[in-house]
Amino acid sequence: MPPPNSNPPPRDVRMRGFSRRSTVEDAWNWIDQQSIHVPAEALDTVSVGGRVLATDVTSPVNVPAFDRAMMDGFAVQADDTLGATPYNGLPLEVIGQALPAQPIGDIVKRGQAVRIMTGAPMPDGANAVLQVEQANISEDQVEALDAVTPGKHVGKVGEDIAQGSVVLRSGRRLRPQDIGILASIGVAKVSVFRRVRVRVLVTGNELLPPGSKPEGFQIVDSNSPMLRGLVGRDGGDVTCSEIVADDPREILAALKDDVDVILVSGGSSVGQEDYAPRLLAEHGELAIHGVAMRPSSPSGMGRLGERLVFLLPGNPVSCLCAYDFFAGRAIRALAGLPTEWPYRSRHLPLARKLVSMVGRVDYARVDVVDDRVEPMAVSGASMLSSTTRAAGFVIVPADSEGYAPETPVEVFFYDR
Amino acid sequence: MPPPNSNPPPRDVRMRGFSRRSTVEDAWNWIDQQSIHVPAEALDTVSVGGRVLATDVTSPVNVPAFDRAMMDGFAVQADDTLGATPYNGLPLEVIGQALPAQPIGDIVKRGQAVRIMTGAPMPDGANAVLQVEQANISEDQVEALDAVTPGKHVGKVGEDIAQGSVVLRSGRRLRPQDIGILASIGVAKVSVFRRVRVRVLVTGNELLPPGSKPEGFQIVDSNSPMLRGLVGRDGGDVTCSEIVADDPREILAALKDDVDVILVSGGSSVGQEDYAPRLLAEHGELAIHGVAMRPSSPSGMGRLGERLVFLLPGNPVSCLCAYDFFAGRAIRALAGLPTEWPYRSRHLPLARKLVSMVGRVDYARVDVVDDRVEPMAVSGASMLSSTTRAAGFVIVPADSEGYAPETPVEVFFYDR
Repeated sequence: MPPPNSNPPPRDVRMRGFSRRSTVEDAWNWIDQQSIHVPAEALDTVSVGGRVLATDVTSPVNVPAFDRAMMDGFAVQADDTLGATPYNGLPLEVIGQALPAQPIGDIVKRGQAVRIMTGAPMPDGANAVLQVEQANISEDQVEALDAVTPGKHVGKVGEDIAQGSVVLRSGRRLRPQDIGILASIGVAKVSVFRRVRVRVLVTGNELLPPGSKPEGFQIVDSNSPMLRGLVGRDGGDVTCSEIVADDPREILAALKDDVDVILVSGGSSVGQEDYAPRLLAEHGELAIHGVAMRPSSPSGMGRLGERLVFLLPGNPVSCLCAYDFFAGRAIRALAGLPTEWPYRSRHLPLARKLVSMVGRVDYARVDVVDDRVEPMAVSGASMLSSTTRAAGFVIVPADSEGYAPETPVEVFFYDR
Repeated sequence: MPPPNSNPPPRDVRMRGFSRRSTVEDAWNWIDQQSIHVPAEALDTVSVGGRVLATDVTSPVNVPAFDRAMMDGFAVQADDTLGATPYNGLPLEVIGQALPAQPIGDIVKRGQAVRIMTGAPMPDGANAVLQVEQANISEDQVEALDAVTPGKHVGKVGEDIAQGSVVLRSGRRLRPQDIGILASIGVAKVSVFRRVRVRVLVTGNELLPPGSKPEGFQIVDSNSPMLRGLVGRDGGDVTCSEIVADDPREILAALKDDVDVILVSGGSSVGQEDYAPRLLAEHGELAIHGVAMRPSSPSGMGRLGERLVFLLPGNPVSCLCAYDFFAGRAIRALAGLPTEWPYRSRHLPLARKLVSMVGRVDYARVDVVDDRVEPMAVSGASMLSSTTRAAGFVIVPADSEGYAPETPVEVFFYDR
C-alpha cells in the first residue's frame, strides 16, 4: 500500500469534459475506411480451421476421379435388368468383386455382374449398380429383382467437384467440412489471412498484474485478460500485454510497437494523466475522441504509422463496450471476418420500460427471463459483475428515448 | 495404384441391411445416460477462456475493497452543498487531491473538499462526490454549483461483488469478461473440466492421409481433418488421428487407447469388412447399431471399458451428420457444455416443398436465399461439396412426410 500523500502541492488537474463528441456512426465510418486486410500466409490445410481464405480455391482434380459405385450391390449392364421384378428374377453370372481402390480388371459383358462395394471403381462394361436389397444372391450367381436404369447408383467423374471449379471463395471462414473438402482434393496448403497482431497497453499506477491479489488501494487489472479473449474471438492474437506507468515516454514507446492494432486501456479521457490521446494526436492521428454513447463515452481511435490505435476507458464495462463497438469491428475487418456483431441475437419483448437519453447510443445490459427482456438496474460502468450477470445487451440508438414494455428489441447474447 | 484383383476367389461379402434400426431418440437417450463429465483440472485463470467451470467460484474479497469515487470531481460532505445552484455557488476549500491508489491522509471537514479522480479512495470525512461539471474551480477553492446527496457518485465497499458471494457458477462456459472478473478478485487458478481426449480412427484400404494428392483409385481421407475441427468446437482435442488398415487386430488395438472418446470413421455398417461394430460387441458393448435416419443410417455407438465409441459412416456427409447427431452431443456433455446443437438457428419459410420419408429422421441440407429456405437437390451422402455449398440444414422428424412451401422451419447454420 503506497503512503497517503498528505498535503500535496495543489496541481492543475484539468478536469474538463469533451468539447464535442463524435457519433457512433462517425467512428464506424472511420474504422471502415481504415481497415484493410492483414497480409495472407500459406499454411497447412489441416491447421486452418476457423481461418479466413485470402484467395479462391479451385480444384486441381475431379471428385470422384473415376466412376464409382454409390451403393453396395452389383455392377451390371442396365439393359440386363429390363423387366426384372421380385416375381421375375433375372439371373446374372457373378464374375468377381470390386472393392474401394481394388478395381476388377475384367470387363462386364451381357449377362454378367460384379459384386461391388460403395466407393469402388465401376468395372468397364457396367453402367449401373443393382442395390444388394434388389438382388437374390446364391453362389456365383445373382438374380436381379428390379430393373435399374443406366447410371443408377453410379457416381460420375467430377459430379461432386469438377476439376478447375471454384470450391471455396476468398473471404470464407473455413468450417470443419471445408478443411475436409480441401484435403480430399489434395490441396495441402492454402492462403489465409494471418491473425491480427494486437498489443494491449494497460495504464494506471493503481493496477496490479493479473494473477495478483488485490491489496490495499491497489486493484488487479481485469481488462487485459478480458481483451485477450475478445481479440482471440475476433481473429487476432495478443502478442504483448503489459501494464505501463502513467508516463508519456513509456506509453509512446509502447505505441510504436510493430503490430497491427494497439489497444490502450485506461487514460483515454481528457484528464491531465490521460497521455495516450495527446500522444496519438501529436505523433499520429487522433481521428475520434469522445463518442456520444453510454458507457464508453471517453473512447478514442486513431493511427500511428500503419497501426490502428484504440483508446478504451479503464472502467471494465466501458472497456468491454468500447472494444466491442470499435476495436473488435476493426480487428474483424483486418482479419477478413464480417464486421457485424459477433454475438447471436434474438428479437424478444421487453418485460419493463427501457429508458435511454436522446443524443447518445446506449449499451444496455439486460437479463432474459422466460424469453422476456429485463433491463438491468446498473449504476455505473465499473460494475464488471453486471456483464457476467447479464445475458447480453440491447443497443438503443441515439435518436431514441427508449422503449415501452412489450416492445420487441434485439438482444445480443454474451454467450454467442 | 494397387493391382486390379482380376478373378478373385468369390468371397462371401455379407451385404445385408440392418435387421432393426434404432430411433434417433434411442441413441440420444443412450448418450445422455453414458456421458458423465471428464475430470476437472486447476488452471491459470488467464488461460481458461472458453473452458467450463467445474465448481462455483466465490469471491475472496469485496469489490470495491474500499469506498471509491465513481466520477472525477470533488470529495465533499454532502451537507455543505445543500442549496447550491448554478446561481448560488457555495465555496469550499480544496485541501488536496486523491488519485487512484494514492489516497489523501487528511480528513475532509465541514467547508472542505478534496480533488478526486475516478477510482480513487474516498477521503475520510467525505461522503459524496461533486462532479467536476457541477463545480466552478479557481486556485485552491471550488464552488459547488449543485447539491449532492450523501453517497452520490461513491462506490461502496462490496457493492460490485460482496466477499463470499458466488461470482460464477459451475457449468459456466467462461466468457472474456468472466476471466476479467476472476482476475479482478484475485482468483489466480480455477477448476475447469479438462478437454475431452478423442482418438480418431479412419478405416479404409483406399485412403491416403490428409496432405496427399489423390492418385489412381485411392482417395484422400477428408474425415479426420473435418473431425478435428468439430471435436475442437465441442470442447475436445484429437490426441491421435490415424488411418488403420481394414484389419481387426489393428482396429482392436486402437479401440483400447487411453482416451475418453473414440471416433471410428468408415467400416461402421454390417458388411464383411466392417470390423469395428463386431469388435465393439465382442469386447465391450455395441449399444446402438443402425439408426432410422438419412444420411448416416449405418451409425453405431457403444462402450469399451470407460471409453465411448462412435461408429461413423465413411461417407463424408454421413460422417459429418453422425458426428453432429451423436458424437458431438456426447463430447459436449463430457466437456460440461450444453448438449443442444452448436449452431445458430433461425425459423425461416420454405421456398419449396421439402420431401421426407415417414419412419426416419432426415438431415436435409438447405440453402438460404433472401431469408427463404431452399432444400438442396442432393443425390448422395458422398457429396461433401453439398455441405460447403449449403448454408445449413433442417431436421425433419421421423413422423413427418416433409413440409409444404412457406412452412416455417428451423434452419441450423453451418457458420454457427
